[in-house]
Amino acid sequence: MHVHAFSNFVTNCYSMCSLNSSCTGYSEGLSAAKLLKEAGLTVVVLEARDRVGGRTYTVTFENNYVDLGGAYVGPTQNCILRLARELGVKTYLVNEKERLIHYTKGKAYPFRGPFPPAWNPVVYLDYNNLWRTLDSLGKEIPANAPWTCRYAEQWDNMTMKELIDKVCWTRTAKDFARLFVNVNVTSEPHEVSALWFLWYIKLCGGTKRIFSTSNGGQERKFVGGSGQISEKIAEQLKGSVKLKQPVVRVSQHPGGVSVETLTGEKYQGAYVISAIPPGLTMNIHYEPELPPIRNQLIQRVPMGSIIKCMMYYQKAFWKDKGYCGTMMIEDENSPISMTLDDTKPDGSCPCIMGFILARKARELIELTKDERKQQICQIYAKVLGTTEALKPVHYEEKDWCGEQYSGGCYSAYFPPGTFFQFSRALRKPFGRLFFAGTETATKWSGYMDGAVQAGERAAREVCGEAGSSTSIAEVPSQPIRESFLEQWLPSVPAFLSVMTISTVFLGALGLSLVKPSMRPHFFK
Amino acid sequence: MHVHAFSNFVTNCYSMCSLNSSCTGYSEGLSAAKLLKEAGLTVVVLEARDRVGGRTYTVTFENNYVDLGGAYVGPTQNCILRLARELGVKTYLVNEKERLIHYTKGKAYPFRGPFPPAWNPVVYLDYNNLWRTLDSLGKEIPANAPWTCRYAEQWDNMTMKELIDKVCWTRTAKDFARLFVNVNVTSEPHEVSALWFLWYIKLCGGTKRIFSTSNGGQERKFVGGSGQISEKIAEQLKGSVKLKQPVVRVSQHPGGVSVETLTGEKYQGAYVISAIPPGLTMNIHYEPELPPIRNQLIQRVPMGSIIKCMMYYQKAFWKDKGYCGTMMIEDENSPISMTLDDTKPDGSCPCIMGFILARKARELIELTKDERKQQICQIYAKVLGTTEALKPVHYEEKDWCGEQYSGGCYSAYFPPGTFFQFSRALRKPFGRLFFAGTETATKWSGYMDGAVQAGERAAREVCGEAGSSTSIAEVPSQPIRESFLEQWLPSVPAFLSVMTISTVFLGALGLSLVKPSMRPHFFK
Repeated sequence: MHVHAFSNFVTNCYSMCSLNSSCTGYSEGLSAAKLLKEAGLTVVVLEARDRVGGRTYTVTFENNYVDLGGAYVGPTQNCILRLARELGVKTYLVNEKERLIHYTKGKAYPFRGPFPPAWNPVVYLDYNNLWRTLDSLGKEIPANAPWTCRYAEQWDNMTMKELIDKVCWTRTAKDFARLFVNVNVTSEPHEVSALWFLWYIKLCGGTKRIFSTSNGGQERKFVGGSGQISEKIAEQLKGSVKLKQPVVRVSQHPGGVSVETLTGEKYQGAYVISAIPPGLTMNIHYEPELPPIRNQLIQRVPMGSIIKCMMYYQKAFWKDKGYCGTMMIEDENSPISMTLDDTKPDGSCPCIMGFILARKARELIELTKDERKQQICQIYAKVLGTTEALKPVHYEEKDWCGEQYSGGCYSAYFPPGTFFQFSRALRKPFGRLFFAGTETATKWSGYMDGAVQAGERAAREVCGEAGSSTSIAEVPSQPIRESFLEQWLPSVPAFLSVMTISTVFLGALGLSLVKPSMRPHFFK
Repeated sequence: MHVHAFSNFVTNCYSMCSLNSSCTGYSEGLSAAKLLKEAGLTVVVLEARDRVGGRTYTVTFENNYVDLGGAYVGPTQNCILRLARELGVKTYLVNEKERLIHYTKGKAYPFRGPFPPAWNPVVYLDYNNLWRTLDSLGKEIPANAPWTCRYAEQWDNMTMKELIDKVCWTRTAKDFARLFVNVNVTSEPHEVSALWFLWYIKLCGGTKRIFSTSNGGQERKFVGGSGQISEKIAEQLKGSVKLKQPVVRVSQHPGGVSVETLTGEKYQGAYVISAIPPGLTMNIHYEPELPPIRNQLIQRVPMGSIIKCMMYYQKAFWKDKGYCGTMMIEDENSPISMTLDDTKPDGSCPCIMGFILARKARELIELTKDERKQQICQIYAKVLGTTEALKPVHYEEKDWCGEQYSGGCYSAYFPPGTFFQFSRALRKPFGRLFFAGTETATKWSGYMDGAVQAGERAAREVCGEAGSSTSIAEVPSQPIRESFLEQWLPSVPAFLSVMTISTVFLGALGLSLVKPSMRPHFFK
């Protein structure tokens, strides 16, 4: 049997270990291709770019390597970690030894833990209720069939901004919730469906797992860079990976599928796996035409907006000050919203990695590279409280918004009203055409891990097999637990009710009401 | 000079008079091509389909013709009407002699005028305030630069559903507002940006002009069908219009532009006009790559969802009952939300034209054609109160959601958060590549009229000319006036305040407050 898989573009990149493959690739394109080849099938991977890796992209300069795209992995991401182990790529821990910084209202507050703490008790209750509510609503959504959630239509008809405004009582919590959305899905709360965002967080194991460095999604990076994963698979598939071959046509006929590329090359196969983000499949002409729901779905899944910025310094001066390099920055004038230490594990190449996200990426893309560099140094100097931040030795950045064959990064998002009516078409095969891409994953969708899961699942579908990827723990994973307080502290409105009622009834009724309302009662 | 224009797809169709042209077309593709040819330039029109017309599509059967796509024109649409006159295509009035019907809560209420009346005085105030507010907010938005409106960011960050919930006090007004959005932009209030929708309505001359048959957007149809306009231009351009040539690549170089089609043909030109909907330009590979904002814009402008349905009867039995055939149907179980009489002007081919819109199009596309036909007849029988509606002699329908080279109909919409940051890129030329398409118009955008305006504007840009299309009245246009009551009746909250205050102060203060708050105070 001859199987085609294409990923014109990077398919998982910013969050994948797959190449931009075309004609059955692995992770997504390449991971699919690898699995199919191991099953004894003939595969061809058609890649749009002149390199593999897609939304992952490791470049080297002056004895240094840098991940300009997808980079982070962590516990429970067992698909990508297993694949990396098989390929001999090791991970190292992202530095989080010292304190993190939360910068808000012009001041820097050092802290430890996944989320910044709050000293104001009302804000504390509000934060706590926010994370608890997002996780609790997520539990209502089936990972592999979000449209069947009993609140699916209601939640999809509102934006995350609307949900945040309903859940949060304080400006402080609302503002941090915006940053949380920006960081996790490179888009704005008012742009994304609440149903989709809740599902996305759920797929990563909840608010703490997705946002944490230690024991979370940003715990580790790959020694040598994430780009190696695609490169190593491409080596194994040597001869089967065709670069600079963007697919322009997929024609299905009773005997199989033919695929044409922009250079005029034609390939015949029994099946095709599309391992590119759903929105970029608009780049292809289909014969016969796609079914109506898929034809409209692929117009409705834009890619997020991000510029990834690496600022290199002579030394890791932030560590001397007792900071690990993680900064969560709430300041409309700061280009960067989130940073992590990007120094190499041996202490070489001291570096702060920062994200310009969503609305800010769209604004700041108009500046020059040097203007962005200046603005970034200035905010780092403010947050870290030292002019040392103004003297970088090198600057690297990557704007993903301008990439034709990624469309943006990390991943596609669903605007309101789209996930409920269209998501059932995401993974649904169309004849001999199957769909991978991290956007089709049911765990860590949008990540490299989801890319591998999706690529392998698509490959199994082609082989007519069911079953899912192994999920043996590749790195230690601590369960995410809610403390007693986190679980039982009231929300702000519940607290206010309790206070009022207590005052009147001297607490007689109060105790039974302290339990916060965890149900999504405000939707009823 | 040699000029290219392509419109792989119908460019204006559902609301255009232009062909799907490629390499400078007119209206949008073809209207641009016509104007350029008249200016002495050489043009080639590359059309993706095997026919011209795009989102307009007139077919004939049994001595009848039917517009399966864009069909309606009306006063102030002077670009398309002028073009039609030049080409010798005449218009006729859509029947609105008898009463219209508003069907809600299971009952039919006959009425006259653009909007259904309300007998409940609170609902009356609420309706009145809704239309007045939408028009008044629209006046704040510059037609050609909506992103410069002082409320642009705020309004773009909310959906129309949020705006409706803020403006309307009664369930009745909210429900009708949903139908109003469904009918005008084939999408749901929760899917579209409030800024974009307000701008869209403003460009059509306001809520009454857009929604009316007499003196509004649905006043007329073309004798012989709207498809003739594209066909007649294509005849004039004979030899320059290439069918079945979807464009797959646009490469710009210092000397000009080269365009490649799916069949491998190559064309060279000095300029290219893209006359396809912005989202469908994703179908093309660009060299050099598009600028980042345009690269992301074109992922963010999905086409609306509609199935257009024509039910033919032995006779126009609704007229015998004193109904003109216009039905506004509020019923979750009705496939159709809006109908118009589609009988020919000589009384032949009695027909009711009905729209399956937005969410309903996505649901009902899964049924068979016959199942849709049955459901439609049943609701017509209920609304018109006669079993005659159950005995059609013929049924025609057109699902636009499944069309690869339209993507949907009538037009593209902007989800929340997109119009403010991306709309400035809509019309902005990229080197030698210019953009037409009804979505880029500044009057009746989304309509055939906007398509012609946009095509001609793009053609003038290529010629280095400024100026806009003529706007001499082609058919009589009555000014849209607000009556004294419409202007001065209070909104529901203002009325309630007045009542309260009057009660307390015996009307002493009341009079000065009766003036409704026309300013968008709720956004401050």
